[in-house]
Amino acid sequence: MNTSAKIDRFLEEALDHYIEETTTLCAQPSISATGEGIKECAELVAGLLHERGFQVHTLPTPGSPVVVGHHEGESERTLLLYNHYDVQPPEPLELWTTPPFEPAIRDGALYARGVKDDKGEFVARLAAVDAVRAAHGGSLPCGVTFVVEGEEETGSPHIAQFVDEHRELLQCHGAIWEGGGTNPDGRPKNVLGVRGILYVELFVETMERDGHSGNAHLLPNAAWRLHRALGSLKGLDERVRIPGFYDAAKPPSKLDLELLDALPDYEEWWREEFGVKEFVLGRRGRDLDRAVFEPTCNIAGIKTGYQGKGSKTVIPAEALAKVDFRLVPDQDPEDILAKLRTHLEAEGFADVEVTPIGYMWPAKSDADDPLVALTARTAEEVYGRPSLISPLGGGSSPIYAFARPLGGIPVVHAGVGYGGNRIHAPDEHLRIADFLQGARHIGRILDGFAGL
Amino acid sequence: MNTSAKIDRFLEEALDHYIEETTTLCAQPSISATGEGIKECAELVAGLLHERGFQVHTLPTPGSPVVVGHHEGESERTLLLYNHYDVQPPEPLELWTTPPFEPAIRDGALYARGVKDDKGEFVARLAAVDAVRAAHGGSLPCGVTFVVEGEEETGSPHIAQFVDEHRELLQCHGAIWEGGGTNPDGRPKNVLGVRGILYVELFVETMERDGHSGNAHLLPNAAWRLHRALGSLKGLDERVRIPGFYDAAKPPSKLDLELLDALPDYEEWWREEFGVKEFVLGRRGRDLDRAVFEPTCNIAGIKTGYQGKGSKTVIPAEALAKVDFRLVPDQDPEDILAKLRTHLEAEGFADVEVTPIGYMWPAKSDADDPLVALTARTAEEVYGRPSLISPLGGGSSPIYAFARPLGGIPVVHAGVGYGGNRIHAPDEHLRIADFLQGARHIGRILDGFAGL
Repeated sequence: MNTSAKIDRFLEEALDHYIEETTTLCAQPSISATGEGIKECAELVAGLLHERGFQVHTLPTPGSPVVVGHHEGESERTLLLYNHYDVQPPEPLELWTTPPFEPAIRDGALYARGVKDDKGEFVARLAAVDAVRAAHGGSLPCGVTFVVEGEEETGSPHIAQFVDEHRELLQCHGAIWEGGGTNPDGRPKNVLGVRGILYVELFVETMERDGHSGNAHLLPNAAWRLHRALGSLKGLDERVRIPGFYDAAKPPSKLDLELLDALPDYEEWWREEFGVKEFVLGRRGRDLDRAVFEPTCNIAGIKTGYQGKGSKTVIPAEALAKVDFRLVPDQDPEDILAKLRTHLEAEGFADVEVTPIGYMWPAKSDADDPLVALTARTAEEVYGRPSLISPLGGGSSPIYAFARPLGGIPVVHAGVGYGGNRIHAPDEHLRIADFLQGARHIGRILDGFAGL
Repeated sequence: MNTSAKIDRFLEEALDHYIEETTTLCAQPSISATGEGIKECAELVAGLLHERGFQVHTLPTPGSPVVVGHHEGESERTLLLYNHYDVQPPEPLELWTTPPFEPAIRDGALYARGVKDDKGEFVARLAAVDAVRAAHGGSLPCGVTFVVEGEEETGSPHIAQFVDEHRELLQCHGAIWEGGGTNPDGRPKNVLGVRGILYVELFVETMERDGHSGNAHLLPNAAWRLHRALGSLKGLDERVRIPGFYDAAKPPSKLDLELLDALPDYEEWWREEFGVKEFVLGRRGRDLDRAVFEPTCNIAGIKTGYQGKGSKTVIPAEALAKVDFRLVPDQDPEDILAKLRTHLEAEGFADVEVTPIGYMWPAKSDADDPLVALTARTAEEVYGRPSLISPLGGGSSPIYAFARPLGGIPVVHAGVGYGGNRIHAPDEHLRIADFLQGARHIGRILDGFAGL
């Protein structure tokens, strides 16, 4: 029996155990936005690594602690695995079929907040480590370093400084990021990079307390004021109106566009999954994918005035919007923040307070790196179909915080998702079959990494 | 001794009796929001009218009953007096110096929930009726019809239909509304009308569930969609962009503007009371008052996406705005609703659902109506200072429900308030001196109405 077959058999036999570990981890809330359960969850993560013989450090940051676990391997080469133990807030609670922190199995899937993003993914990697070690008579062919942070869902505000301060501890030759898996019809996929993000709050106060709307001809309305400030940010053509916003945005290369054009057409999938009638700007087909190279300006939330039942005739004194900009290589969120502020002042909105909530820089790996090839080849072996290589993902992650300070290491994604896991939404779930496939894939990468 | 002097002497001598009647009425809770004590209070009101020889009908509505009391007069002319026997909920109870339904006298004022709004005002009118009758040897110079409703504090949802169904019973030649009295420095004031209102919810759903903002280049954002629909409603010049919106809006008459310009300048008061730095459109001084003749489009609230702490990177699938339009004579809220719908469709926002939450029509008496002149002249006689005549108030009330179906009757305000009575708040009170002045004023109006 070859090593891969041993890995597979181990995982199939022990699957229930790993679903139990995932269940335990998901039953522990760990909401970085509020701090709920963060400390307790970090302890659970450290325990899971410790009981496998990893040398564990639970290291403080100004926010949530980062759990680092290292295990020596037979070769000098070390693979870093990035995960996070924090989750998105579970609201709106009434839209969950079963409570978000009471994991429940239905139709072959485990339902819970964070089960896919990112607790199940972390446990699948622990399972892969166990399986590879079992297949190699107790030792690992390469060194493995887990980095499990607790602030990914609030924009990883401290991970860059953390990596910078722990370069020695985190020294490695490549990394596997969170996320990844297959597309909805089961084809494995490989994403070469992510967009950056600037997340801000825009707040305006026009008076000291709400007024009666019978005085709307004289008392200034904060909701309208914010409305107009937001209107200055983006045109009906979706182009961001902040001067200089696009200066550093690199268009996709010829190879990027070739890779994009080889991907399946997901239009119908998006349409059905979200019940969309019309996409942004009426985009269709290939244009939906290509638009990932367009940076965006998204309203994530607005809170102002009366929100209850029926009518309350108030002039809101305060209004708050949460806005995120997704940035493409080589846009810089700090530069965009400065330009946003300059723009608002120039447009007469000096009264609109801009508070940055999170930054991430874009990051993208070379398509011809050997780790990319290993990941794609082993994915094809596990999933039985050639891997789809996507040059740029739409989301953001702190890849930039690792790739550059650790010496330009290649970073790939390999995970347990299928694109319909409802991450960040009610009824987040993880299909148990995907968990098993994801663990088999990671096992093969761990097995092959020493030989690259 | 002339009639006015007789009225005054009667009221001064019997004052204690009327304060006792007010006390009895205020000791009976009558909270329309919860229904507590409504039936019992309606019976007390009917009893007070019945014992004065009024023909009393306690008439049902789908909500609280309306008490109607009619008394014949020497002339054919009838004056209608509108009051309400329901009160606002008394909470927060801990902020009351003495319990809200245990009336107590302190420093020359009677403290109780509803003592000013509107039970004391009602009893002051009963006192005026008694005084006028005494001065005329037992008869009233004009007919008097009291309409005392029990749902004013919940928006008078049934009064319009009630008046429509009882036109015969309510036939009259003019009406005195609740409210009125003096401003805080003791000058009597007269308001000739109120604006109407159309209160709507605008709701848009762009997809079946929230998306991840990493897909903002393709998934349609409901917050942006609503933003654009709202932006179509009003220009930066504050002009409402709905075609035909201003068609029925009558500009103020020359006399209206003269009356406005004779009012004190409240700019500093508004500035301090609300901490306003800049008013709508930078209006100042007299323009602040004149703008009451501009209908408004007010955002009373917006709810969309994530509103909690920190960041959540979502594309909202749903967005809701509460919007009210204050309407000037002769705008019609039903017509404006139809035009709003037509406008949104024409602008490409057929997907934005419009749900009407409340309507009221504007209503305004002519500044040169004889009842206005009588009210102002007698106010000056009682309060010793010329009356401030405000041609149009910024808020809304169900005056239209009487004025139009009863044949375009003039409606004036005359009451017992001074602007500091803390209505709807803890420690609501009525100054006994104001009660007496208000009764003297109403008595003079009743005395003069037949001769108009």
